[in-house]
Amino acid sequence: MKFLHTSDWHLGRQFHNVSLLDDQKAVLEQIIAYIENNSVDALVIAGDVYDRSVPPTAAIEVMNQFVNRVCGELKLPIILIPGNHDGAQRLGFGSGRMRDSGLHILSSFEDMLNPVVIDSESGPVAFYGMPYNDPEVVRHHFKQSVTSHDEAHQFLSQQIRECFIPEHRNVLVSHCFVDGAMASDSERPLSIGGSDRVSHEHFVDFDYVALGHLHQPQKKGEDFIRYSGSLMKYSFSEQHQKKGMTLVELDENGFKSATHIDLTAPHEMRIIEGEMQAIVEAAKTDPKPDDYLLVRLLDNHAILNPMEKLRAVYPNVLHLEKPGMLVGVEQQMSQAKLARSEMDMFKDFFFEAQNGELSDEQETALKQIITQLNQQ
Amino acid sequence: MKFLHTSDWHLGRQFHNVSLLDDQKAVLEQIIAYIENNSVDALVIAGDVYDRSVPPTAAIEVMNQFVNRVCGELKLPIILIPGNHDGAQRLGFGSGRMRDSGLHILSSFEDMLNPVVIDSESGPVAFYGMPYNDPEVVRHHFKQSVTSHDEAHQFLSQQIRECFIPEHRNVLVSHCFVDGAMASDSERPLSIGGSDRVSHEHFVDFDYVALGHLHQPQKKGEDFIRYSGSLMKYSFSEQHQKKGMTLVELDENGFKSATHIDLTAPHEMRIIEGEMQAIVEAAKTDPKPDDYLLVRLLDNHAILNPMEKLRAVYPNVLHLEKPGMLVGVEQQMSQAKLARSEMDMFKDFFFEAQNGELSDEQETALKQIITQLNQQ
Repeated sequence: MKFLHTSDWHLGRQFHNVSLLDDQKAVLEQIIAYIENNSVDALVIAGDVYDRSVPPTAAIEVMNQFVNRVCGELKLPIILIPGNHDGAQRLGFGSGRMRDSGLHILSSFEDMLNPVVIDSESGPVAFYGMPYNDPEVVRHHFKQSVTSHDEAHQFLSQQIRECFIPEHRNVLVSHCFVDGAMASDSERPLSIGGSDRVSHEHFVDFDYVALGHLHQPQKKGEDFIRYSGSLMKYSFSEQHQKKGMTLVELDENGFKSATHIDLTAPHEMRIIEGEMQAIVEAAKTDPKPDDYLLVRLLDNHAILNPMEKLRAVYPNVLHLEKPGMLVGVEQQMSQAKLARSEMDMFKDFFFEAQNGELSDEQETALKQIITQLNQQ
Repeated sequence: MKFLHTSDWHLGRQFHNVSLLDDQKAVLEQIIAYIENNSVDALVIAGDVYDRSVPPTAAIEVMNQFVNRVCGELKLPIILIPGNHDGAQRLGFGSGRMRDSGLHILSSFEDMLNPVVIDSESGPVAFYGMPYNDPEVVRHHFKQSVTSHDEAHQFLSQQIRECFIPEHRNVLVSHCFVDGAMASDSERPLSIGGSDRVSHEHFVDFDYVALGHLHQPQKKGEDFIRYSGSLMKYSFSEQHQKKGMTLVELDENGFKSATHIDLTAPHEMRIIEGEMQAIVEAAKTDPKPDDYLLVRLLDNHAILNPMEKLRAVYPNVLHLEKPGMLVGVEQQMSQAKLARSEMDMFKDFFFEAQNGELSDEQETALKQIITQLNQQ
């Protein structure tokens, strides 16, 4: 039994006011190509298919087309749960009508205890999906004194274990924050103020645990308790993360292996650091100038229209930081006088704007103006 | 072949800030009971399942439960199109996955030309669904110079007719305003400023045309071109309309009969007219005091807290009109002096508030105050 584990697609997400939907579509095409060229038995999506509970219709269309291709044409079953970004009821509409066609949206606690069983050469595998829910919902639904995410997952895992059948290997699909795992900048906290961490101990009786929520691929506690990571990078701080999906293999004895399959967005997210002149120079030989960039400008002097200059060579600079200028500001704060005088700053500006130095006459006139202004 | 034709459910609708969802659920139960107790081959919903393109999750849940009962348990196919209140893409998610399970959401032009064929004793019947679209969408999609709803429907009907197969009887499901039909107060216009009317002539080649949009049950042009009307009343002006669904029978030759089946909401919408005292008196023997009421108070004198007095006997008075008081206001406007003096109005108020007359002393004091105020 081989299946693909993926999560955190966040279809419809915006990044610095740029829609990522075309990039997301391109990555989904890579998933489809993999399925076409390799033999797998199922695709698991561990929550956050959409970025919001009411996704834009364009995102719904992309998902619909994906599902029609994968379940409809390629006849591969998809098993998915809602994450904290999805709206479970909204996503779950018609789920009862879709199960026979291979799309398994496990969006309720009833669905959770009713696994999707898929046969394979190594025997039947039961996929249990734990739809994302706040602890209060678990407490209310099951009339249990559950107060934290940890207690909720302990309780829900126990409920599921009671459904186990000896012949089955068992896979859990869950969307949660396993204690000790590494967060990224692009996740929305599950809990404000309270603890959202869950012990991996609740999951050790499963043969594989397909996790979603954290955007960095990683395992935690056991080799078979894994985050696939997000479909693509959703913050600049993820620039060095390898995004992809996890190919999971089970055999008669349970977990056999997990392999990372790279997925690459057309536009990578990168941070470029340096002085303006060096960045513009390096751009000439940059093989991917269309990437989404955060540029950290290290120049210490003021630069006129830096964004315009950068976008001439890197059209998708989405964010600009000027730590060099900030150093200047900090120095100013700690000194009685400005580190760079008004005269120096104007000279920088004049140089940028006119591409030349002030004449003696201009400098004298400017000094008078500054003196006058300071006396007011 | 017998099928039920219904439309304009508007699940999730609010009426004067009251949620109608419980009433809607109760009426849906009547539909389910009918299906359980009678032999029908399909249920057709001609648009406006929901009241908005992003319906509240509670409305989605109600629809989901209905679908699970009817398609899942009772195995009756449902054929539905989005109306102008629905979001076609949103409603259509997963529709390709659901068709095998009996839920046919025809939400795209591709779906429109791909009929749902249902076999019956009198031969196969093809149900064509025309999802609601503005003329601009038709123009854009088909690259046709279509400018009005009428032209769009003429064109789309022609497209559908080209799919006809001689062995089939053909049913059209459409959401539109047939010219000459009667509107109610609770429909949202399809077109602001332009014409939204469509000739029934485009539809005469079908064996039955199941229409949605207009909330009053009616036929137009031919016996077999019909509006089922809305699930329940959605404005007070519909108080005398008989709401329900239409039982349609086709035989080998096509249309045979259409029969109205009553559906009754737990709370009717009614208008009560009269003077306060008479209304309160009549309430004592009113068999349905919980109905949603518009009360038109005919008293000519001011009444303190009329809503409170009415709701003591009719808890669901949702709107109050005082045409009797308005007559007074109009008189005031046409006369130099107030028809009812400040003194008279205060006496009304005092009587209501204190349940007694002013003493001579009080009246004298009040006159002084009014004189002073008028002099200011």
